[in-house]
Parts: sequence; structure tokens; C-alpha cells
Amino acid sequence: MKIVSAIKRVPDEIQLRLQTRFPEAAFIFCHGMGEAKYYLEEADVFITYGEDLDREKIQSAKKLKWIMVLSAGMDLMPFDEIAKRDILVTNVRGIHAQPMAEYAISMLLQVSRKAKTLIQQEQKAEWSRRPVMNEISGRTMVLLGTGAIQQEVARLAKAFQIKTIGVSKSGKKKPHFDQTFPVQQLDLVLPLGDFVVATLPSTPGTRYLLEEKHFKEMPKRAIFLNMGRGDLVSSEVILNAVRQKEISHAVLDVFEEEPLPEDHPLWREENVTVTPHLSGISPHYVPRGFDLFEKNLSVFISGDGELRNIIDPKRGY
Amino acid sequence: MKIVSAIKRVPDEIQLRLQTRFPEAAFIFCHGMGEAKYYLEEADVFITYGEDLDREKIQSAKKLKWIMVLSAGMDLMPFDEIAKRDILVTNVRGIHAQPMAEYAISMLLQVSRKAKTLIQQEQKAEWSRRPVMNEISGRTMVLLGTGAIQQEVARLAKAFQIKTIGVSKSGKKKPHFDQTFPVQQLDLVLPLGDFVVATLPSTPGTRYLLEEKHFKEMPKRAIFLNMGRGDLVSSEVILNAVRQKEISHAVLDVFEEEPLPEDHPLWREENVTVTPHLSGISPHYVPRGFDLFEKNLSVFISGDGELRNIIDPKRGY
Repeated sequence: MKIVSAIKRVPDEIQLRLQTRFPEAAFIFCHGMGEAKYYLEEADVFITYGEDLDREKIQSAKKLKWIMVLSAGMDLMPFDEIAKRDILVTNVRGIHAQPMAEYAISMLLQVSRKAKTLIQQEQKAEWSRRPVMNEISGRTMVLLGTGAIQQEVARLAKAFQIKTIGVSKSGKKKPHFDQTFPVQQLDLVLPLGDFVVATLPSTPGTRYLLEEKHFKEMPKRAIFLNMGRGDLVSSEVILNAVRQKEISHAVLDVFEEEPLPEDHPLWREENVTVTPHLSGISPHYVPRGFDLFEKNLSVFISGDGELRNIIDPKRGY
Repeated sequence: MKIVSAIKRVPDEIQLRLQTRFPEAAFIFCHGMGEAKYYLEEADVFITYGEDLDREKIQSAKKLKWIMVLSAGMDLMPFDEIAKRDILVTNVRGIHAQPMAEYAISMLLQVSRKAKTLIQQEQKAEWSRRPVMNEISGRTMVLLGTGAIQQEVARLAKAFQIKTIGVSKSGKKKPHFDQTFPVQQLDLVLPLGDFVVATLPSTPGTRYLLEEKHFKEMPKRAIFLNMGRGDLVSSEVILNAVRQKEISHAVLDVFEEEPLPEDHPLWREENVTVTPHLSGISPHYVPRGFDLFEKNLSVFISGDGELRNIIDPKRGY
């Protein structure tokens, strides 16, 4: 069995561990698709970020039985061709949960506890205990989305004795949520949110879901945090809400246009914190992705156990 | 029974709640000792931050049976006089646990996830995803001290899947610690600390406990955080450790001299974060203090149940 990886810079220890554990497989670790494409023809298994595959490459990979996508978004995958060939596709859904949950808690602490003010004081060597560091403990969080990422956000929030209220399409109960509601009840839930945290993907149902009235419904002390997709709400609406003091702060990791243009007013708004879409980035990303791959490979070879994160190529998720 | 409070700005709702719940008591809420001293003579119970009492005041308070100290440090209390009169003293030990634990987690996240760099980028409207946001999840924390504050730090750390190793005089097992060691084994434990968090009080046993060699023992990636007392380690030793890159960062909330002088090199050292001794400050401080008082008052009046946080005036703690 030939296993070809197009993932750049796979640490030596991971390569060695896989080769040792699966002697029946021949691993070819390539530095990106530019190199990997020469080995596709012989590949039984292909490991990729999923952005570099097209119909022709799938056709050339005549023996391909399994594509392991080291990513969660798969917008660029040629699923029609993959479905035709009945190739197994798995991905690393859930791998972003840990860094994104840390991002959310970290940013809520940063804003609540006045980190920017304290850092400014430090730069001026100013000893002042006036800034009021609000605690996040004991507050209420409204989470838009109740999937793997938000379950991890909610789990950490619960450690801080934060009340967690989830909003999803179905409103189905999920682990670490005190309450969950269907999106139709959004108007009833938003007034409770000291923190409103969004991780929603971009779908016809979520695009510009949040409008002016929703920010009016949030408490004036609310911190809004979006680390899902930028088209959940227009910059215009966020800027107005912050300027009108309908909410106290917005933390934004995603934007309608990325990179956020240098002259965009969001950069300079006092009560907006901008980060460059990095909530999901983690130095542990590749090791965690290969951990998942290793578990799946063991099932794939032995036939024992259940493969994780199987993607239905007809639906694309 | 007369209850005199010298605590400034006690919220109306707390005053009202106490008066309603304890109709047998007459409450006199004063704005500081300047006002309260006129009522001391008739006071059965006195509520104070403990810094404003002296021997004369205790002598003038002829009916005094209980002093509720809304503080944890009691260096200035005239304990000899109090012991002579057999006056009950209780304090709010443990009240700092929640804000201080939030402080610790918040600062470890801030440093690990490169908040200062990201804030600088934001100020320049610079979209760069190069800063590596390290996760705190899954790392190892060495906690110097295993009391109420550190138990709360450890509890939150465990939510982040951080391994928690405590160091105390006795090395006795405590909740939320994976392991605990007596201070004699400090040298063996420090090399394990991705984070080394200190909350030790100032005692003959802890004064300048940490020396040059201890920072050499920590991993180079270690973040050292001190929110106990400034005389645990000299600024000199910290500055050297950071400059020699024996550790990656020091977060300091306490100093040998406070306020930290404006020209002190710690303010300007890149890998040192200075905050002005505010880890224990919380907007919830007074409400939480009065919650404790209320519980104790109910026991004090009824004689049912157990008083919390009784101080032995002979030992002073």
C-alpha cells in the first residue's frame, strides 16, 4: 500500500512513527502538491489540505481508495469525480475546537480584564490600579452554533461558572450547554448574553443572519465575538452597534473581506478588537491531524473499528 | 445588637438585604473609619478592612465582641489587645481565589498567544498571521503554594487539560493537583514547568526562596508568574533569567518595592509583563465579602452552624 502525503514540513518524528507502526505501508512524504503529483498515480491513500486537488488529479490517481483531508473546509474538492469513483474521504472536523475555544476565552478575558489599557500603562511605566478588571466568571454566554467548536467553548466556559446558552437550527440539547434554543428564538435569547460568541459557517441560513435589531437586543455590556464567518453580519452593522454603545465591545477574527483592508474603519474603532483570522491556527495542527489519520489508518488496514469523520462526497460534508 | 461598618460605598442593596434579614440588629454603615470611630463605643460587631484599627480604638470599643475583617492580610491588626479582650476575629480568606485564578489564566493566555504582538499589529492595521499563538492546553504548570488561590488556579488549569504540580511546605495532597511535593523537592519539580505560578505569602520560609539556580532549572520556554509577594525573588534574579533567556517570559503583579519605581528596568524589559498588584482586585469584592459576613452573622446570632475563617489572634492567622 502506498500512502502519499502532500503536507509540507511533516515533523520527522511523525514520519518515523507512522513508518514504524505501519510497516506494510510505503509512505511518501512530499513537500506540497508540486512534488506529490508525480506519485499520485501509485497512491492508494492521499493526504492533502484539499485545496490542491482537481478532477484531473483524481483521474490520474487510478488506485486511489482514500483521501485524508487535513482540513475542515472542503469547498475546493472535486466531489463529483470522487463520488463517481467511490473514493473514501475523511477530514479533521473538530481539530479546530481546541485552539478556537482558547481563542474565545482568551479574547473575552483580554477585553473584560482591560488588557489593552494595562499594556498601555505598562508602556508608560504607569502604576495605576484604576482600570476595572471585570471577571468573566459567573456571567452568561450565548453561543451561536452548538457544534464541536462551541461545545469546547462551552466546556471551558462552564469551568468559569459561566451559564451557556446555545442557539442552533434545531435547538437540540448538546453537551456543556445549560440550555439550547432553535434559531427562531434568537430574539429571546440575545438579551441574556453578557458574551455572544459566533462560530457559524457561511450558509444561506446564516448569511447576514445578525442584523441591527439583534445588537439592540443584546445588553449594553455585551461583548460580541465572531470567529465563524465574516458574512454573518455586515461591518456596517457592527460599527453602528459599537458606536451607538448598544454593545460594549466586538472581537472580530473574520470579516466580509479578508484580509481586512488597511483603511477599514474596524481597525481603528476603540471598542473593536481585530485579529487576522487566526483563531483556528495552532502549532499543534499537523500533529493532531496526523493523530487522527493514524487512528483511521489503523482501522482502514485492519477493518476493525470505525473510521472517523467520513465525508459524504454527494453532500460535501 | 449594633453592627458598625467602616467599609466605604457598600451598595444599597447589600445594606437593605442585611437590615431586612436581621431585624434584631441595628446597622450603621459609615464612610470609612473617620466616620465609624464615633460609633465604635457602642459597636458589638465591627466590619473593617483591618488597616484602620489600633490599640486605642479597640480599647474605646468596650462592647466589641466580633471584628469582621474584609481582607486577607492583617499585618496591621492590634492582635495583642484583641487577644486580651477575647474578641472574635474573622476574615475573608479565599475571597481572592476567583479573581486571582482568572488573572493567572488570563496572563498565561496573553503571553502564550502573543496578545501584545497582535495588539501592535492591530494598531498598525497590519494583517499578518505570522505570530504563533501557542496553546496553554495540555502543558504542565508548577504551582508554588497549594492553598485556596492555587486550588482555584489548578481547577481552571485542569479544564485546559494542564497537568498541575503543587509545591508546599508539607507536600500534602490537595484538590485539583495531579501531584504535590514538599518544598525540599523544588529542584526536581521546576524542570517540568511550562508555567511556574507563585502565590506564596511573605514569610521567613518564602523570602527570597527563588534564586538564580531555580530559573536555570526551569525550561527555556517557561513562563514565570508571581502574584504572591514581591520578596519571593529579587528583580535582579528575574531580569537576569529573562535576559539570559533561561525562561521565556515573566509576568509580575508584585514587586520588592511597590509601586514599582517609574525608572525600574522591569517596566521596559521586553519579556516581562508588569501589572500594578491588581490580581486580587475584583468589582465583586465587597459583595462577596458581605456574603461571607452574612453567613457568619447568621451563625453568630443563632449559635447554629460553624463560623468561617476564624483567626487566632495569638498567631495572627
